Amino acid sequence: MKINENYKNLETSYLFSTIAKKVSQFIENNPQKKVIRLGIGDVTRPLCKSVVDAMNKAVDEMGTPEGFRGYGPEQGYEFLKDEIQNYYKKRNVLLKNDEIFISDGAKSDLGNILDLFSTDNKVLIPDPVYPVYVDTNLMQGRKIEFLEANEENDFLPMPDFNTKADIIYLCSPNNPTGAVYNKEQLKKWVDYALKNNAVILFDAAYECFIDDNNLPHSIFEIEGAKNCAIEFCSFSKTAGFTGTRCGYTVVSDELNFDNMSLNKMWLRRQTTKFNGVPYIVQRGAQAVFSESGQKEIFENINYYKRNAKIIADTLKKHNIYFTGGIHSPYIWLKCPNNMKSWEFFDFLLEKIQVVGTPGAGFGKNGEGFFRLTSFNTYENTLEAMKRLDGIL
Amino acid sequence: MKINENYKNLETSYLFSTIAKKVSQFIENNPQKKVIRLGIGDVTRPLCKSVVDAMNKAVDEMGTPEGFRGYGPEQGYEFLKDEIQNYYKKRNVLLKNDEIFISDGAKSDLGNILDLFSTDNKVLIPDPVYPVYVDTNLMQGRKIEFLEANEENDFLPMPDFNTKADIIYLCSPNNPTGAVYNKEQLKKWVDYALKNNAVILFDAAYECFIDDNNLPHSIFEIEGAKNCAIEFCSFSKTAGFTGTRCGYTVVSDELNFDNMSLNKMWLRRQTTKFNGVPYIVQRGAQAVFSESGQKEIFENINYYKRNAKIIADTLKKHNIYFTGGIHSPYIWLKCPNNMKSWEFFDFLLEKIQVVGTPGAGFGKNGEGFFRLTSFNTYENTLEAMKRLDGIL
Repeated sequence: MKINENYKNLETSYLFSTIAKKVSQFIENNPQKKVIRLGIGDVTRPLCKSVVDAMNKAVDEMGTPEGFRGYGPEQGYEFLKDEIQNYYKKRNVLLKNDEIFISDGAKSDLGNILDLFSTDNKVLIPDPVYPVYVDTNLMQGRKIEFLEANEENDFLPMPDFNTKADIIYLCSPNNPTGAVYNKEQLKKWVDYALKNNAVILFDAAYECFIDDNNLPHSIFEIEGAKNCAIEFCSFSKTAGFTGTRCGYTVVSDELNFDNMSLNKMWLRRQTTKFNGVPYIVQRGAQAVFSESGQKEIFENINYYKRNAKIIADTLKKHNIYFTGGIHSPYIWLKCPNNMKSWEFFDFLLEKIQVVGTPGAGFGKNGEGFFRLTSFNTYENTLEAMKRLDGIL
Repeated sequence: MKINENYKNLETSYLFSTIAKKVSQFIENNPQKKVIRLGIGDVTRPLCKSVVDAMNKAVDEMGTPEGFRGYGPEQGYEFLKDEIQNYYKKRNVLLKNDEIFISDGAKSDLGNILDLFSTDNKVLIPDPVYPVYVDTNLMQGRKIEFLEANEENDFLPMPDFNTKADIIYLCSPNNPTGAVYNKEQLKKWVDYALKNNAVILFDAAYECFIDDNNLPHSIFEIEGAKNCAIEFCSFSKTAGFTGTRCGYTVVSDELNFDNMSLNKMWLRRQTTKFNGVPYIVQRGAQAVFSESGQKEIFENINYYKRNAKIIADTLKKHNIYFTGGIHSPYIWLKCPNNMKSWEFFDFLLEKIQVVGTPGAGFGKNGEGFFRLTSFNTYENTLEAMKRLDGIL
């Protein structure tokens, strides 16, 4: 048996394990000092009441002969797809239910969608980047070209019409930079994709953090996107589902390449290699869209946003360049005094016991940058920024 | 963008849609007649109380700041892996926890595991077969050779040491035939795989139906299997989790090809392209192994087994050849009077209003055979067999 040799080209990331090691070392040497973690990449607020109630109800149903559900549709129950359809409608994006595929999360789908594409495609990935885009392509042996995101373009790289790419990753609001494309910018990407017969994989996992009605939550707000883009979204950040697992992927039935419908191909992939999201979880996700659910999840989102604003305001006060902080739970800042990413990490840990994530861990353009997140408590975020203010 | 051309080689199966059409047509024409469905391929008994209680508790936990869980380990929580480790230990199979990977089901893993293998491998798949084995390989463009399962070998094909294969699918107890390999037979397959440097993908999704302590529940009961086999198992049939979604895959750390550890490769695949099973569901699966959970799930399994026995006894009485019926929820019978599969389907529907699945739908060796399942109620199964008895 021959293995998939491409796995030999994968590099192991030591980013988070190195951080953990450094922090635990510090704590061992300084047990009396209170470390505040602003590097958390996971939500921390509990599931909201409406979701908890809906899931308890669904669990009980599953315990009765009348309420029990076996295999569901692999692409998700209509009751949840109806809600998502409605959600898009509010922004004038009209979707058919069979264009919406419920899944166990954006990460799975972003990896699995590559099954539909030849390995003989050129992939364009922004740097800095969510490492999953890179690794999933390396695993299948595709050629990757990096798109330079930097201070010059405010970490929102635009297409170069002189180069050709086949598969393009865009994430907006971005992880790790928090930068958000506006409609005009996304329109250029759509134009580029249509001109080059390319597909855009649009990661909208952070759309719920967008505060400005003029900024696009979905790439399908852009004309022509249905003919060139696939959108990935998730309840992870929207409703605290990182440990509950539910997302959705939108593949328009207008998306065709080589006379094949990607919608039909994805349906075939999912019905063959996936068995759907737990009924219980889909009922929980449905409750996110109820009146009480919307109110409750936005209380959590606004909690994180308030934290982000506290961080952003502190950086502004000291004229530190950053992206994000608004429309995003992330704050991507330029390390002061031309410090390198890891240098700034050590500096913060030593001086004020604040932990963040060195930007260099997200790609070469991340060097000299640093990511803070809004997922700690209000009190801790306030305290961390008071400390930061004191040393800047 | 170039699509994955292999998708053009997939055929659409009309098996279950044709059955549905024929049945609804019949009901329309004969509204007064009671149709009994013995073609159901999904469990029907509700989740047991221990599982329901555990999941309700986990849902409540997720609604509190102290109990909330975000991202879990992609390969599953230790609390569940501990139980599975214990479960294997009872049959003297010793596993390390990091050899056990929790997933959303055997179907996903059976498809996804192929990511680790070169497309340049020869695949050996039994016929008749669970279609997913075939389609997932066609999607990646692998060459498939079929292994003849038939009346002559009691639907338990053995290796031919004169031919070479790289990837071998075995499912025991088998879907659709219900046939079960004994230890001596499995040992021959392990010997074959070791000799040919092949990997066995062992689908053990129906192991809980095995009644005889001498029959292997796991391929790891066979010496040498850790060096050549990967095992896929699931709570779907064991505990009625078809709509709740949880399974596990065992990849020994002794399984190496081309100096690469498949255990490490699978870990890398799962951490990159999967985000783990919902915490709530893993708590439910854990409860399956509790004393009350075991008692309750076996009440359901025994309920199905009693149905299978009723069917098997009826066939025996009429000297009809069949496999399964014991150690399996499936009964795979030879159509009487040399009828073809679809002919027998029509015959049963017309004469006694019993619906089953034509064997021809599972591959060419299924022609002339028919699958009945034990997933209907006791009363309906009894009634269906009374009707069958009357016409045979």
